This record gives sequence, C-alpha cells and structure tokens, in this order.
Amino acid sequence: MNQNMVNQKLRAVVVGGGFGGMQAAQSLSKMGLDTLLIDRNNYNTFVPLLYQVAAGQIEPAKIAYPLRTIIRRSKNLRFLMDEVRHINFSDQLIETTDAVIPYNFLVLATGSQTRYLGVPGADQHAFSMRNLNEAIAIRNHILSCVEQANCETDERLRQQLLTFVIVGGGATGVELAGTLVELKRVFKKDYPDLDVRQVRIILVQSHNTLLGDLPPALGRYALRKLIRIGVKVRLESRVSEVTPTSVRLESGERISSATVIWTAGLEAARPSVSDNLKTASKGKLVVHPTLQLEHHPNVYVIGDLAYVKDLDPPLTGVAPEALQQGVAVARNIKRQMQCRIPKPFNYFNKGRLAIIGCYSGVGKIGPVLLTGFLPWLMWLLVHLVYLPGFRSRLLVLASWFHSYLLGDRTVRLILNHTHSSRLPLTKSSENIVQDSH
Amino acid sequence: MNQNMVNQKLRAVVVGGGFGGMQAAQSLSKMGLDTLLIDRNNYNTFVPLLYQVAAGQIEPAKIAYPLRTIIRRSKNLRFLMDEVRHINFSDQLIETTDAVIPYNFLVLATGSQTRYLGVPGADQHAFSMRNLNEAIAIRNHILSCVEQANCETDERLRQQLLTFVIVGGGATGVELAGTLVELKRVFKKDYPDLDVRQVRIILVQSHNTLLGDLPPALGRYALRKLIRIGVKVRLESRVSEVTPTSVRLESGERISSATVIWTAGLEAARPSVSDNLKTASKGKLVVHPTLQLEHHPNVYVIGDLAYVKDLDPPLTGVAPEALQQGVAVARNIKRQMQCRIPKPFNYFNKGRLAIIGCYSGVGKIGPVLLTGFLPWLMWLLVHLVYLPGFRSRLLVLASWFHSYLLGDRTVRLILNHTHSSRLPLTKSSENIVQDSH
Repeated sequence: MNQNMVNQKLRAVVVGGGFGGMQAAQSLSKMGLDTLLIDRNNYNTFVPLLYQVAAGQIEPAKIAYPLRTIIRRSKNLRFLMDEVRHINFSDQLIETTDAVIPYNFLVLATGSQTRYLGVPGADQHAFSMRNLNEAIAIRNHILSCVEQANCETDERLRQQLLTFVIVGGGATGVELAGTLVELKRVFKKDYPDLDVRQVRIILVQSHNTLLGDLPPALGRYALRKLIRIGVKVRLESRVSEVTPTSVRLESGERISSATVIWTAGLEAARPSVSDNLKTASKGKLVVHPTLQLEHHPNVYVIGDLAYVKDLDPPLTGVAPEALQQGVAVARNIKRQMQCRIPKPFNYFNKGRLAIIGCYSGVGKIGPVLLTGFLPWLMWLLVHLVYLPGFRSRLLVLASWFHSYLLGDRTVRLILNHTHSSRLPLTKSSENIVQDSH
Repeated sequence: MNQNMVNQKLRAVVVGGGFGGMQAAQSLSKMGLDTLLIDRNNYNTFVPLLYQVAAGQIEPAKIAYPLRTIIRRSKNLRFLMDEVRHINFSDQLIETTDAVIPYNFLVLATGSQTRYLGVPGADQHAFSMRNLNEAIAIRNHILSCVEQANCETDERLRQQLLTFVIVGGGATGVELAGTLVELKRVFKKDYPDLDVRQVRIILVQSHNTLLGDLPPALGRYALRKLIRIGVKVRLESRVSEVTPTSVRLESGERISSATVIWTAGLEAARPSVSDNLKTASKGKLVVHPTLQLEHHPNVYVIGDLAYVKDLDPPLTGVAPEALQQGVAVARNIKRQMQCRIPKPFNYFNKGRLAIIGCYSGVGKIGPVLLTGFLPWLMWLLVHLVYLPGFRSRLLVLASWFHSYLLGDRTVRLILNHTHSSRLPLTKSSENIVQDSH
C-alpha cells in the first residue's frame, strides 16, 4: 500500500541504520543516487557508549542520533521506520511490515545480535546489552538491586543482590566491569547504610586472556588492572547455566547473583531472504572481497552481517570497519553504474583502543602498545569526536566531567518498573528466591 | 523483616516524594527530627515540565531528581523506595511491600491521579500524563503516529494518525496544545514528504472558558492565542466515549484520532488506611486548618491529597502550595514536640503563571494581569529556578535554546516500541482500524 511513496525513482536501499548502514546511505546519497534507508528504530545508536547508559553515566538520548536528521541534509535520501520481513532477490523486492519496496541496489547492514551459545537459562535470565532499550533495562535493574539490598536484612539475599556477573572478557565485558567498579563510589554516597564492600563484580571469561582481539600484553594489563580495582576475574571459565538467582560455571561452582550480563557472543542478525546463502562462522553472510554477495552482484553486505572472503587480517567487528565498508560500497555501486568493475575492500586500521575504567585503558596504534591513562583519555576523545551531533558531544563531555572528576552519576532513574509485589529484580521479572545449592 | 533498618530512632515518616513530601522531609530533618521518606520511585518528578518531556523537548532524566541526593545532604533523613500498602493509625504502623514501619508523626503526601470521570474507553484508550513513564509513552506514541502517517497512503487513516485530541482546558491542556503546535515545525524539517498542515490539534474543554483557575480575561487571551496558532478549541464540549481510533463528544460529533491525551480531571491518590476518613470533592482527605487529620493529631496531609477546611480562597493544586504546606507541617510538628499548639496554614500566593506556547503566556502577579511574551519568559525562568539540581538547570536551559531559538527538538527517540505487526499506535497497543461511523 505504501509503494507510491518510495518507488518513484528509487535506486538504492540500505537496510539497517547502524554505523555501516548510516555511512552507506550518506555516501550513496552524496553520489546523487536516490537512496532509501530502512531501520526498525528512528535513531542510530552509538553502540560504543551503550555501557555508559547501562551504568547510569549518560542519558540514552545522547547516544541516539535521529536518523531523520541525516535526511534533512541530503536531498536524495529518504528514511523509512519499518521492520524488514523478507527480501526477494529474484524480483528485487523488500517486504516490510507495511510496504513492498523495489530496489536496484541493495545494501544489507542488519548487524548482529546476542548469541547465548545454548547455555540453559541464559536467554531468559541473562541481560543482553546490544541496544538502547537493553542498556536502560540494565540500568534500572542494577539500581533496583542496590535499592533493595539497602533494606535487605538477610545477609545471603543482600549478597545475591550486590553480586554482578559479567559473562565475556572482550572489550564490552571489560568496560562494564570497570564502570561498575566506578559506580561503587556513587553507591557509597547514596546509601550510607550500605556496606559497599559487599558489592562483588565477577567477570567470567572462557579464554585464558582478556581482550582477545588485542595483543596478549594488553590483555594481561587489563587483567592486572581489573584485579587491582577489585573485579574478580575467572579465566578459562564457562557458564553452564543461568537461573534468576545464580550462575553455574562448568567447574561446578555456583555464584549467587541477581544480575548476569551476557557479552560473550554474537551472531549475525540475518534478514529472511529468498535464496539459500552461504554463511561463515556466527551465521555471517559470505561476500566477495568487493563486499558483493555471491551470485547477486547488486547486493552488498557490510558490518557484523558480512564475512569478507580472503581478507587478511580478518575483521574484528569494530565501528571503523563498518564505516569504511559503507564508503566502499557506495564507491563500488558508483563503479557498477559506470560499467566499471567493483574494487576489493581494504581496511585501513588506524589502531585500536579499549577502555578499562578507573582512568585506565589500553591501545595499539601502529606497532605501539599503550596502557594506562593515555589510552583511557584517547578512548574518550576519539569516541567524543565520532559521536554524531555537536550538541550530544557537549552534553556527553559534561556528563564525563560529572562522573570522572566529581565521582558522581547523573542518571539514577529507575524507570518503568512495576511494583506489584517486590522489585522486578530479574530479567524475567521473577522474584528473588533463595537458591538451594 | 526490614524493621531493623528503620525503626531504631525513627520519629517522622513522609509518604510521597513529590513537591510537598520532599519539602516536608527536608524541613523535618533540618529540625533535627529523624525522618524517613518513602516513595515508589527513587526520584522526584518536576511535574510542571512533564509536558515538555511528552513533546520531546527535554530528556526525562532532567526533570527527575534522585531522592537519594537529598539524603546525602541531611544526616537525619533516610529514604525507602517502596510501595505503601496500608496504614494502621491505631498502631501507628505503615505496611509497605517489604516492611512494617512504625511512626510517631506521619505526613501523607501521596498526591493525585488521573480521573477519567467514568467516560467509556477513556481509561483504556486515552493517555494520562501524570508521571515520567506516561510522558515518555506519549512522546513515543506521537512520534510513532507521525512516522506511520508519513508512509500512509490512505487519506483518512493519515488524518487519523495526525489528529491529536487533548481533553481538558486547564493549564496542562493548554500547555500541551501549544507545544504540539511548536512540534509541527520539527515535523516539517524531519518529514519533507508530509504535509504538516494535516496535523490537527483539538482541545476539548467542558467549560466555556480556558484556564479556569485564572481570571477570565487570561482564559480569553489563551483562547484567542490558541486559535490564532491553529489549535481547534471546542468549548462547552464533553467527551462521551474514547475508542482506539476516535473520540465521541456529547454533541454526537465523532473525531477520528489515534491520540487522545486526558488532562481533564484528577482525584486524590489515597493510601489504604485503617479508619474511615472524611473526604471532600475528588476524594481528598479533609484536614484541619493546621493540616492535621481529624481525630489523628500526629497525622498531617498535604498537597493534592488534602482538602484544607476553612481556607479562603481554596487551594488550586499548584506546586508552591504543596511546598509551603511541607514547611508548615514541619513547623507544626516541632510545635507539637514542644507541647505547643499547631498553627493554621496560610498560603502566601506569589502569583500564578501559565505558559501557552509559541512565545506566549499569561500571568497574575498580585492584582496585575500579564499576557504575551513577558509571562512566557517569566514562566520559563521561574521553573528553571525551582528545578532541583544545578546541572539539570543548565541542561534544560540548553534544551530550551535548542527548541525555542533553533526551532528544533532534541529528543526524538521512539523507545521501547514493539514492532511485531504495526506500530503500537494506541495506548492499548491495538492496531489502527477504520472506524465505522
């Protein structure tokens, strides 16, 4: 029913408004190609700062950039807030909830989603932190746990409420662990009756090192640092079960905890398509070095959804990769329109930074490894520069001053909780019960 | 089970952390009395700016002040986030979801809630705007309606999506109507394909004048102003039915609309108590001029929950009244502790201001009536000054610059929507259907 609006001169459609998709849409429209960007949300999420939303450090709106603001600047770009249901390659049609949209060129950038690796209970009881709503849910939950712990007289239940388990020792897990340690300072101010030394932060990592994408020396530094600031790190440990009140490790150990945050795995968020496509690990779609889908030269795949053949070193799933792919796709589509052959994608690696927290970070710029305060500061500055929107940048900077210099947190709202019986302290809103180990 | 924490030296308990309750708790603790503040939320909501949250003008966290921040400043003040289930006057006990709390003095400040006046469907299908969650829900809904209207080809459905009906011509209704008119400018920028002239804002008022609490001349000014900026005002009209897709008036007229916001009535949010208490209109509890509950000299009632006997002129339910009552209650409790007789409450009226929008407001300062830009500016300044938190003040000021000078809105996130079939365009998440009149 909505074809009228979108199919008049339509040429390129980009599905997904993350880093890659947003960049592709902008680059395509700059080339003068009529472009439609589709996303289920009306905003782009600045994912690297999600963990700060989860920790009450910055307000959600600051890292959510309205996709329509991009459109204002580009004459050839349209936006549709809708969910893609199916893509028909042979007819070159995209079926959304509300429309059927034809395309000449298609860019798939639907990203990834949390993968619970088949661990029983993880899906229902562990928090995922992949989007804004999930980050807000984590914030509400953590603050509710501490509220309830503050007036809980049962020692074991209080310890359960104050134990936060993070599964996964990649950048996200390390960031979260660090920021929760920082949050203890705020709890100390807000809850004079509470012994904040009871707050336990446990990081569970399956490998024998942290930050696997970075050189081992940096992972070792992160490990030492986290231990020093009080995080309990369990290396070479895997989770075998998650319940509303506990995590069980494969070693048999059971950790009593009301909060499990799962950062351990992701898989491609593949849209439903008409063809059987070749997939690589984590369900990623295999694409030619030019980012074109096999047998579908007018379909490009980028970001977390794509596995690029013959690329050495392989991509690690960070934002700059997706951004550069977005630009490359637009260039290749332009070449195709000029009847020239698309070029292979090459990733120019400017370096990697990871933040640990408590004024510490690690980084690799060219061959140089950095640890400590400098990469921490660089991480903040780089992310500030890349954050879309001048106003958001200023406000996030203000929030950082507030949290890093004044040791406070600005966002401590517990929103949207139901208060029917007790606080909804588990993801599935079940009550806290004494676990029976 | 939680008595240990709270009953050691406890003397005064304040139920409700709104304007009145927050002020009472602060004043009581300043007097040196051990005080416990109970609220179901961990923040105080700055209600006068709720409508700006609903209109995407400011972020929710800016008008939500963490109640624990107050506690940091006062040694004698404790906070409990909990829901009060029942109050037993004879045993002087408060039963919450998690605890039983004894008190010597009790201040009830549980405020008010929306009253739908028995109109069929209003409860299910009309939005209320009494708290932060409700304001966010309205924001999400309005933005979703416009998103969907933007790609709706059916003329009648599009008109339904773009018709916003506000029920109630008091300050809240007038504010909302004005800010929705301002919002049209943003839609014009964001939706180049949409004819924003189709956006209809309809204000339904039962009386023959707007702003009933203010002198008639100001109500007439507000009426002329709203009509001039494009709001359709229906005076002497009452709503007889609300459906997911329409509002029916008592005149028989049916307005096709996906959005009905109900600001027309409120009633006291009375806690469950052991005694049968005397109530006045809107279910308010009748209190002596000293704000003491009849037959219960150690129980005080303030704010929207209280009807103060023999007070002339009667109170109108604005924030300064509750704030002054909070101070008065603390003074009277101190007098009681010194075995002196409590004093009657007197409201010192500094004036009234109401904002209309589009740079217009009205006001009454002493005998002087103001209309136009000056009271608009005064309204903003006064509310900025009274907003708790220095940082929030700066940020709200920044947001206002953004919206009033740049004609933009900063918060355009549609959060927490489910996208299972179509947009959740009605309060009850039912689908838009063609109404059959």
